[in-house]
Amino acid sequence: MPTEKLTILENILSANDQLAANIRRLLDQNGIYALNIMASPGAGKTSIILKTLDSLKGIARVGVIEGDTAAVTIDSDKVINAGFSAVQINTGGNCHLDSSMIEAGLKQLPLDNLEMIIVENVGNLVCPASFDLGTHARVLIASIPEGDDKPYKYPGMYRDVDVVILNKIDLKPYVNFNEDYFRKGIELLNPGVSFFPLSCTSGEGFLPWMEWIKGKLNSSS
Amino acid sequence: MPTEKLTILENILSANDQLAANIRRLLDQNGIYALNIMASPGAGKTSIILKTLDSLKGIARVGVIEGDTAAVTIDSDKVINAGFSAVQINTGGNCHLDSSMIEAGLKQLPLDNLEMIIVENVGNLVCPASFDLGTHARVLIASIPEGDDKPYKYPGMYRDVDVVILNKIDLKPYVNFNEDYFRKGIELLNPGVSFFPLSCTSGEGFLPWMEWIKGKLNSSS
Repeated sequence: MPTEKLTILENILSANDQLAANIRRLLDQNGIYALNIMASPGAGKTSIILKTLDSLKGIARVGVIEGDTAAVTIDSDKVINAGFSAVQINTGGNCHLDSSMIEAGLKQLPLDNLEMIIVENVGNLVCPASFDLGTHARVLIASIPEGDDKPYKYPGMYRDVDVVILNKIDLKPYVNFNEDYFRKGIELLNPGVSFFPLSCTSGEGFLPWMEWIKGKLNSSS
Repeated sequence: MPTEKLTILENILSANDQLAANIRRLLDQNGIYALNIMASPGAGKTSIILKTLDSLKGIARVGVIEGDTAAVTIDSDKVINAGFSAVQINTGGNCHLDSSMIEAGLKQLPLDNLEMIIVENVGNLVCPASFDLGTHARVLIASIPEGDDKPYKYPGMYRDVDVVILNKIDLKPYVNFNEDYFRKGIELLNPGVSFFPLSCTSGEGFLPWMEWIKGKLNSSS
């Protein structure tokens, strides 16, 4: 029985990865750079995406794919109200996006009119880590109030990302958070990963993150 | 293919629920009241459990089962260092506890010497909602910095719990959180659910939560 379950999981993952490779090829053909944004619920994914979109005005045209477990449009409404293209994916209770959902989402975006796509995954520090979505980089957003022990407790997520953003640094004075311990946990799992401590509320630290994105857009164009 | 996957999931859930019913019977025979504590990562599960254990000293002997995706003992060490019985369950990367893991954990606890068991689930607002662990009540811990839209975005979790704790109310002055909107979301999904806003750091609001637990312990003994 466990062998059977393992084989099924492997097949699902392998089909997902093949489709992800096709998606990456399609995006490359259109000159589109794509990010997969992951985080636990409430770390600030949508806020950071909105602020990033705002900073990219006049620099790159960006489409957003919003993943949620429920049939809500809270996040995509925010993006559309801010004047950008957005597609909402309802995972039907599922705990992560997969590449078939991204394939469906891309069909609703004007690909020949975009330089960048940002995917906001379901808020979850476990399941999304296993699914390549065909993006070019994976970004994990942590936040100060979540606590400094998360790299140790969710290593599968911290191990495989290209960027770690530490959000809500404006709340540091009010909570107990040891940044050395947090950084040490990340370095053990993912040495040299790009790291951006910032506050989406105050704007502190946002500039280096934007420079990182602009560097990626320049090298992919 | 989707039908096959659905059938397998149904079988797993049905086996889980049967085992959960057996666990609840075993706990009842031993006069033990059990809670399943769920939350997103960093909402304050371990802190609230530690403070609850402290408040129950001299009132009830409590054992704790700690679930983590990785082979770490951060949480169980904290409980043991505070002088209580704790078992650490490593889910092997899995995103939730199931009743077979609880069955294994219970074998390591002195059941005839306990009045209560607290299970700390994996930090996740999606997957743990589907798995009965054989406990008597499900407690969801939300927290102010996570934001007020979580009931709308994770309805599967908010719909099926017996208690919602809103932790970190001491951070209210520093973040944008509309408690009316949050409460309205909960009421739509789960009318009349027990609700305890509190701060584990300042202790504010902790007493009503302890009274709720004491009421459950009295009626189950």
